[in-house]
Amino acid sequence: MNKETTIYDIAKDLGVSPTTVSRALNNHPAVNENTRKKIFDAANKSGYQSNVFAANLRNKRTKKIGVIVPRLNSSFQSSVLAGMEKVANDSGFNLIISQSLESYEKEVSNALTMFNSRVDGLLVSIAGDSENMDHFTPFLRKGIPLLFYDRIADYSNTAGITIDNFQAAYNATKHLIEQGCKKIVHVLRSTKNNVYADRLRGYKYAFLENEIPFNPDLVIFTDLIEEKGEEIVKQILKMNPLPDGLFVSNDSFAANCIRHLKLEGIRIPEDIAVVGFNNEAISRLVEPNITTINYPGYEMGELAMKNLINHLENPSEGMLHNTNKITLRSELIIRASSKKK
Amino acid sequence: MNKETTIYDIAKDLGVSPTTVSRALNNHPAVNENTRKKIFDAANKSGYQSNVFAANLRNKRTKKIGVIVPRLNSSFQSSVLAGMEKVANDSGFNLIISQSLESYEKEVSNALTMFNSRVDGLLVSIAGDSENMDHFTPFLRKGIPLLFYDRIADYSNTAGITIDNFQAAYNATKHLIEQGCKKIVHVLRSTKNNVYADRLRGYKYAFLENEIPFNPDLVIFTDLIEEKGEEIVKQILKMNPLPDGLFVSNDSFAANCIRHLKLEGIRIPEDIAVVGFNNEAISRLVEPNITTINYPGYEMGELAMKNLINHLENPSEGMLHNTNKITLRSELIIRASSKKK
Repeated sequence: MNKETTIYDIAKDLGVSPTTVSRALNNHPAVNENTRKKIFDAANKSGYQSNVFAANLRNKRTKKIGVIVPRLNSSFQSSVLAGMEKVANDSGFNLIISQSLESYEKEVSNALTMFNSRVDGLLVSIAGDSENMDHFTPFLRKGIPLLFYDRIADYSNTAGITIDNFQAAYNATKHLIEQGCKKIVHVLRSTKNNVYADRLRGYKYAFLENEIPFNPDLVIFTDLIEEKGEEIVKQILKMNPLPDGLFVSNDSFAANCIRHLKLEGIRIPEDIAVVGFNNEAISRLVEPNITTINYPGYEMGELAMKNLINHLENPSEGMLHNTNKITLRSELIIRASSKKK
Repeated sequence: MNKETTIYDIAKDLGVSPTTVSRALNNHPAVNENTRKKIFDAANKSGYQSNVFAANLRNKRTKKIGVIVPRLNSSFQSSVLAGMEKVANDSGFNLIISQSLESYEKEVSNALTMFNSRVDGLLVSIAGDSENMDHFTPFLRKGIPLLFYDRIADYSNTAGITIDNFQAAYNATKHLIEQGCKKIVHVLRSTKNNVYADRLRGYKYAFLENEIPFNPDLVIFTDLIEEKGEEIVKQILKMNPLPDGLFVSNDSFAANCIRHLKLEGIRIPEDIAVVGFNNEAISRLVEPNITTINYPGYEMGELAMKNLINHLENPSEGMLHNTNKITLRSELIIRASSKKK
């Protein structure tokens, strides 16, 4: 590793004393603003990284916001991040992002990395396998604001932004029932977190309301990754009689199921009507176009970042206007994949 | 902000003297390994963030690798990141990721954020609008290894990993010519960087070799984002006579074009044969399935991370075994969207 830039190098370059440089980097009042600025610029430009300067930057904020997502390979998370970037950019903040890959262990290690990177605030959508939230304690202890989005936690009075997953899944299932479906399969991830647990409840509730008995064999848990499509379709085709409805927890996986169902000669929606989730681009590109829930990812990202930055700039204001949870509206978009009537 | 943990707190908790804590965190030889470890663990656990400790961590590496990508909303970049995560994970490194959103200004700011986060190494795929590479100078000056992938730069002897974009585009275009196409439109991003510039050359070269005159009106530059699909298809449909081949620089945008072409009554491949790029999941989900170039994103991510970490662990070894550039193999996958014969 090369020699680090010192305050002596900066002093020499600018023709000032090392004491002045040191004082400026410490925001000592004896240094005038003009000189201070010149020295800060020089320090930045030369890649100066002293502890003093780091500490100083710390007091003045790093202008970094950390985001921990379950998976970057997700159309929904991409939209959320786009909304976050927009707001952060406008306020002069930079995002650093890491992915937990749905693993609790990796989320713990991500949190430590973010903490050591001295982020000003942290936004988290929880990993599918997360067991507890203790890895976020150092943030709370240091007063670094923490906000959950989409997959939220009931943890130490932290705030969260989500959609009403119960209502959304209820609407999707009710729509399939209205199309005449009697045997509706639901494909989702593990119900460890609020998102999928709430959807499963909404799905069940639609049956209850329509006096159709709930059949647990119709609920299929899977990773929702491309490689699983064929296997899940095989599982569905083994059911006797064949299901006439399919409600899948994201559009990419719904598209994947549709492809494999069609390869087996199943007509969509005539034989099986399909509803996805998220309103991803793919739902508008495959045939038939997929009925889905419009999940406002971009708006969720914007709102989460706005609340976090607002709180950073006015710490006396609670993160979510003193509520613990904001719920965004979502809506059912009916397309060809489910229209039997 | 809450009170920070001090060395006095740690000393009290462990029943040792503050001097011992300070020495341990400075790796002073007078402190035995066992005690040093205990003190490090306690410091980590309590969220201790002193400058001394930070400096100490710096000497010992932060175990963070920074990655700057043009856009996270890209199936190709997701695959690359998955490959990187795999290798980093296995070696105990954590990734922090930021996106330039194709903007030079944002890339400059990303680089500064990564530098201040004290990453051990940096992997970069250059933004579409990047004008120069000066923002990476602080890394080189400090001896922090820097490796470009996919979109690489000819900058100060840095190393890069890419595919042979010339050959890949040549193969794609040659395939369309062999299917009988005479008027082939090429849709791509700006040729500011190697990727698209090389592809345009490969496309041109296939015509040259087949003695078909090159027509610059058939080259369409666009952002390759979903919203542009309809506009580009309108532009294509205005051409007289209609083109009979279409070579698009990624599969998502190719799928988008196919959808809008079909809505206008154009048959794929009978009227227009289509070839995409990247072998994204979507190329296997739309109808007809899209002929594409299998771009080994996962392997590229693995290879880039392996070389970087290997160099960190054995600084005497050059990053890419003393070459400046590694070129990965890619291959044409022929599917229904281009098969006229």
